[in-house]
Amino acid sequence: MTIKALLFDVFGTVVDWRVSIRNDLEQWSTPLGIVRDWEAFAQDWRALYQPAMEQVRSGQRAYVRLDVLHRESLDSLLATYDLEELNTDQRNHINRMWHRLRPWDDVLPGLSQLKPHFILATLSNGNIELMVNMARNARLPWDMILGAEVAQAYKPDPRAYLVSMDMLGLEPSQCLMVAAHNDDLRQAASLGMRTAFISRATEYGDRQTVDFVADDTWDFDCGTMTELAHKLCVCRV
Amino acid sequence: MTIKALLFDVFGTVVDWRVSIRNDLEQWSTPLGIVRDWEAFAQDWRALYQPAMEQVRSGQRAYVRLDVLHRESLDSLLATYDLEELNTDQRNHINRMWHRLRPWDDVLPGLSQLKPHFILATLSNGNIELMVNMARNARLPWDMILGAEVAQAYKPDPRAYLVSMDMLGLEPSQCLMVAAHNDDLRQAASLGMRTAFISRATEYGDRQTVDFVADDTWDFDCGTMTELAHKLCVCRV
Repeated sequence: MTIKALLFDVFGTVVDWRVSIRNDLEQWSTPLGIVRDWEAFAQDWRALYQPAMEQVRSGQRAYVRLDVLHRESLDSLLATYDLEELNTDQRNHINRMWHRLRPWDDVLPGLSQLKPHFILATLSNGNIELMVNMARNARLPWDMILGAEVAQAYKPDPRAYLVSMDMLGLEPSQCLMVAAHNDDLRQAASLGMRTAFISRATEYGDRQTVDFVADDTWDFDCGTMTELAHKLCVCRV
Repeated sequence: MTIKALLFDVFGTVVDWRVSIRNDLEQWSTPLGIVRDWEAFAQDWRALYQPAMEQVRSGQRAYVRLDVLHRESLDSLLATYDLEELNTDQRNHINRMWHRLRPWDDVLPGLSQLKPHFILATLSNGNIELMVNMARNARLPWDMILGAEVAQAYKPDPRAYLVSMDMLGLEPSQCLMVAAHNDDLRQAASLGMRTAFISRATEYGDRQTVDFVADDTWDFDCGTMTELAHKLCVCRV
């Protein structure tokens, strides 16, 4: 079966959430005279991501959008950082920093090479509003936003993958999952998808413990999106 | 409230389904030596569109994608046109002509003017696969495909509009419904959306009986998408 669509994990694979959030927090806090370890703050915020989604995956609570989970995590984190005095507008502003994450340097060149040849869609746990705003801000040329919200289920729940592929009218073997996380690719492969690993060894900064390299034989093993485009034989250079 | 997103009806408003389907059928049939009145065929096919969706809207049957309804209508139409001998591949090819509809001449210039200023999304009864393929083929710069499939309900069912806006995290007053059909705008307005009429007086060819002009005072009344862009004050020319 020919690959028809590339389905992308986004946080970590397409965008550098850690440096984006840290820089945005520094830029926001400096004029206010607020000084904190924003690198640690960004990492702590992200550390609350899997536990928050696990409540939905386990059935403890109904699906809610990632914006809601991010906001709940933020509210609890602000107490830890002695920032409870921040008002609602400030909290909303900080929460929407996830809508303005910056792509890794290789992403726009890589996606523009891939775009004429494949359907490019997100298969992320981010909600639609977040992904649309991120795409417009960073000029990510998605054909469609798929993943958690359209499936009402968070990866690695199989429904997130299966509903997304079904909406494109494609079989798993026609879809290439692109991710910087071996777990994500493991689930994709188990559902019959093709797989591409993109190495993002600095995603978690000094806290990174996994995903430095492909830990299985995925269909493609790449350092960048441009390398992926080259391996998919679409790089005309 | 400022307009943040433009939500587009697609069949008739963005693409000229009648001429596209007629021309595609002519191009396909000529080498096969099949001669029929393809103008009438295209119009007859479209005439089966509302009755097919009405089965879903009325609750007689569960939501199924427009591709399925199109195919059922096609199968019944082929009998009328003495074309029952067409095989499955041929029927699938004809059915996918809806994935390759051509935009009206003003659409790409208009959308490219609007794109930097507003979220551009479809709010169509077309299914996601159809809309993604059409967008890639015609280079329509949508930020998101919304409408019937994400809502599992066909316009004018209010859910098609409400679910779409909710997925963008927007209030109805922040959304402009763009359509060549007064009924569509009437439903949008009743839900609190802003409204823009685009006149497509040749959509139904010699069978057109309505929608020559705006039959109510919509927020914008335009002949083309470029005129809409101009009226929304984004035309820099």
